[in-house]
Amino acid sequence: MTGWVVIAGLGPGNDALVTPEVQDALAEATDIVGYIPYVARIDPREGLTLHASDNRVEIDRSRHALEMASEGKRVVVVSSGDPGVFAMAAAVLEAVEHGAPAWRDLDIRVLPGITAMLAAAAACGAPLGHDFCAINLSDNMKPWALIEKRLRLAAEADFAMAFYNPRSKSRPEGFGKALKALRDACGDSRPMIFARNVSRPDQTIRIVPLDEVTEDMADMRTVVLLGSSTTRIIERDGTPLVYTPRSVKDV
Amino acid sequence: MTGWVVIAGLGPGNDALVTPEVQDALAEATDIVGYIPYVARIDPREGLTLHASDNRVEIDRSRHALEMASEGKRVVVVSSGDPGVFAMAAAVLEAVEHGAPAWRDLDIRVLPGITAMLAAAAACGAPLGHDFCAINLSDNMKPWALIEKRLRLAAEADFAMAFYNPRSKSRPEGFGKALKALRDACGDSRPMIFARNVSRPDQTIRIVPLDEVTEDMADMRTVVLLGSSTTRIIERDGTPLVYTPRSVKDV
Repeated sequence: MTGWVVIAGLGPGNDALVTPEVQDALAEATDIVGYIPYVARIDPREGLTLHASDNRVEIDRSRHALEMASEGKRVVVVSSGDPGVFAMAAAVLEAVEHGAPAWRDLDIRVLPGITAMLAAAAACGAPLGHDFCAINLSDNMKPWALIEKRLRLAAEADFAMAFYNPRSKSRPEGFGKALKALRDACGDSRPMIFARNVSRPDQTIRIVPLDEVTEDMADMRTVVLLGSSTTRIIERDGTPLVYTPRSVKDV
Repeated sequence: MTGWVVIAGLGPGNDALVTPEVQDALAEATDIVGYIPYVARIDPREGLTLHASDNRVEIDRSRHALEMASEGKRVVVVSSGDPGVFAMAAAVLEAVEHGAPAWRDLDIRVLPGITAMLAAAAACGAPLGHDFCAINLSDNMKPWALIEKRLRLAAEADFAMAFYNPRSKSRPEGFGKALKALRDACGDSRPMIFARNVSRPDQTIRIVPLDEVTEDMADMRTVVLLGSSTTRIIERDGTPLVYTPRSVKDV
């Protein structure tokens, strides 16, 4: 049996957002590797072994997946969202680069998924409909100064923005600091969108002017979007629609 | 019959990347609206009317979809990739904002899809595995000076970058100008990735150092990615793997 490693995106939570390509890989797998809540989304079946592990052990998990593939197993590393966006694909490739030379010749594939920012954008309209950027607000793996620099430059470029990992119990201060940097750099009260549990039955969408945002509006289950200076709100009965127009007239 | 408009992402081309959510909407539709090559992806069936239109008529197409939904039809506006990323969702919402007041109360939903940059990233590893931005290189709807400004600021922020619409027959010069701006701003020869016909049987992936890129490497069927200063290449038999590490040590 020839082993392989597939790093697959399960999307943000709703099974109707899992691509057929990923479903097929899961059906062929002998082993599933991933963070506990993502592995919990996989239906057990005979011949399939589930290996759930805790957060912050991404490299150990990657090495385990590569070792099993070397032994001939068909391994799916499951990620939430898209595996290439602040998720497991980069971790597995880091393990390949620094691991056993033979790992480079394994059959390694990345299968895209619906990443949280795009599900969140769809849930409120099209706030990322023009040029935009995606920033991980966790400073676990990069200096906080770099995050603030990127926020400032992104505002100067007038990108719409998507923020992953805005706030956690171990980093309660970061989101407040990011808000201050964004208010200073943007100089207006463009809409910020808080999409919590996006695509799940308990999804909530809040659209709040930047000036009125408080840091407790975000947690680790929230992806946060921020409009550009041109973003529009269409008021109507119920939740408004938010979109960033495709055209910009002046610089 | 209560009408609705769904703006749905068909992904980059491979039907295995169309989500079940989008498949369900297509199955319930009475009318499909979209650009000719995207409508051509929909299987005809009894009770379904296909309305294919040419490029650059996005607002007319949007108004048509909204009018039909007002008459009780179930309309799917099809986009390639994700409808919220340089595609039809912003166009439909622009038509809503400036159109008949009653359109605001229609049932309007956006269904996300696999956007080209994430399929392209997956096809070569994880080049967007750290903070990144997405820029439409067409100056049909924004001044070229704004594009150059964004390229310069994105390089200063050390984002990985994804470029949509890099080059077309009507805009043969733009990509060359963008390359010059990027070389000046980046000051190194980080990898640029050309993903043409991504996810289709004739997909090609080229990984080229920025210094060696020529403008004819891109066309309208290509999405272009550029690494950050930290992006790594893992050489191996066949196409190398490219990834941007999750961590950055210094600013």
